[in-house]
Amino acid sequence: MTVMSRIACCQIALRVGESDANRGAALAAAAAAAADGATIVVLPELSASGYVFRDKAEARALAEPADGPTAAGWARLARQRGVTIVGGICELGDDGLLYNSALLVDPAGLRVCYRKVHLWDAEKLVFTPGSGPPPVVETSGTLLALLICYDLEFPEWVRLPALAGAQLLCVPANWPAQPHPVGERPMDVVRAQAAAAVNRMFIAVCDRVGSERGVDWVGGSVIIDPDGWPVAGPEPGDHELTVAAGCDLAVAADKMTSERNDVFADRRPDLYRALAGEGD
Amino acid sequence: MTVMSRIACCQIALRVGESDANRGAALAAAAAAAADGATIVVLPELSASGYVFRDKAEARALAEPADGPTAAGWARLARQRGVTIVGGICELGDDGLLYNSALLVDPAGLRVCYRKVHLWDAEKLVFTPGSGPPPVVETSGTLLALLICYDLEFPEWVRLPALAGAQLLCVPANWPAQPHPVGERPMDVVRAQAAAAVNRMFIAVCDRVGSERGVDWVGGSVIIDPDGWPVAGPEPGDHELTVAAGCDLAVAADKMTSERNDVFADRRPDLYRALAGEGD
Repeated sequence: MTVMSRIACCQIALRVGESDANRGAALAAAAAAAADGATIVVLPELSASGYVFRDKAEARALAEPADGPTAAGWARLARQRGVTIVGGICELGDDGLLYNSALLVDPAGLRVCYRKVHLWDAEKLVFTPGSGPPPVVETSGTLLALLICYDLEFPEWVRLPALAGAQLLCVPANWPAQPHPVGERPMDVVRAQAAAAVNRMFIAVCDRVGSERGVDWVGGSVIIDPDGWPVAGPEPGDHELTVAAGCDLAVAADKMTSERNDVFADRRPDLYRALAGEGD
Repeated sequence: MTVMSRIACCQIALRVGESDANRGAALAAAAAAAADGATIVVLPELSASGYVFRDKAEARALAEPADGPTAAGWARLARQRGVTIVGGICELGDDGLLYNSALLVDPAGLRVCYRKVHLWDAEKLVFTPGSGPPPVVETSGTLLALLICYDLEFPEWVRLPALAGAQLLCVPANWPAQPHPVGERPMDVVRAQAAAAVNRMFIAVCDRVGSERGVDWVGGSVIIDPDGWPVAGPEPGDHELTVAAGCDLAVAADKMTSERNDVFADRRPDLYRALAGEGD
């Protein structure tokens, strides 16, 4: 029997420093997506705090523990609606350090907190990079993984949850806009397409919109199938919107691409291991 | 001082079994590209033998040593014109085994023979997979690497020559045509774009055209810059043609993408090594 998951990426605008308003906007968008049938909702990176901090002190003032108010709001909605929610927060760790983290919350509550391992630009001035593996979580019979934004540009990192069985990789993002040729998709999307295709898994990226202290965002939220093709998004223009698609996530378990090819079985990990490190 | 390399991918039609004619066609296309100013010429995979072998015996009858007639023809042209030529042959190894190999020939002669590590479909019935690293060769002051077709779908493998300093990855290919949505580039090209972007190196893929025993080809030859954008090709339609572009390969040495980001320095090889193998 085919069980369709309905995935929704709520591409909202955020205002740095206005955590309560941002939480409310994210929760409202997630609730609307759930009312529209979504079973898995992805929200942007740093969805409560905003992104462009003046300095570390401002980030610290906006930080919250993994099981803080953002997770609590998502957990209520998850229980009420039976949905799974993935999104980013500015995390104050038990160790007093700041992390750019993503949470997965389902009807059972906060399931996992992942700390971004590859930090982008000024994030390096604020956050401590994570050092844990990309988690893979079973929820409602599906295997979901999470990474954050720039993590997706490191194929070695994407490979880990894929090999661990992830059917859908959820990626909260804040993609800063960069120039790209007319008629082309942003390169962020192209890289995500290739990441989905080489691993034959679904990828759902939730980006944001709204200018923030001089930074514009791609607004490139997209849901990609295991062949690498977008099944929803990216939508042109800089709009708040939800991209959504019904996906049979079970097909991601099939890694065959020809009668004799399986993209995982065809790997040569013995060679990769023997040769890796030579260039590092 | 900017030194421009002119790269040409000669997308020719091949006929399986007609090695002399195929060699002549490849050499004529390469000579024309050189006359047009090319300094680096890339030819398709299995450019002398053709691809769709009836069986191993037919492949064996069409095989040649790395320093066989194909290399000899390329070496003459390379000396006459001062060009570097990369392309594929059906190699008969000293060990009596068959390999799907790529050669790099420059004015000094045959510099390297690389044996395809990741075999596609019926190739598994004919060829022994290689087990050597993707070579990186200095020629005319540039660092060139070579992989073959399906190898490009394994990001771990692409990473190795990139980390070893390759400025241009030359990829002889025979991309079998697969359906793709109208208006989209073939996924082979999308994957190549992402491979270039995440490693910030140039990639030149030489594909082929011409139907062979029921197999059609993408005809997707393309030259991609370190931002991931095609600078020449792919051209629509199933035509013999040469895609060519002038490229300042030295820019591939710069891995910076923001004031604080370097796509190589940002890698976390300690984590990749510690976690790899868990899923294998």
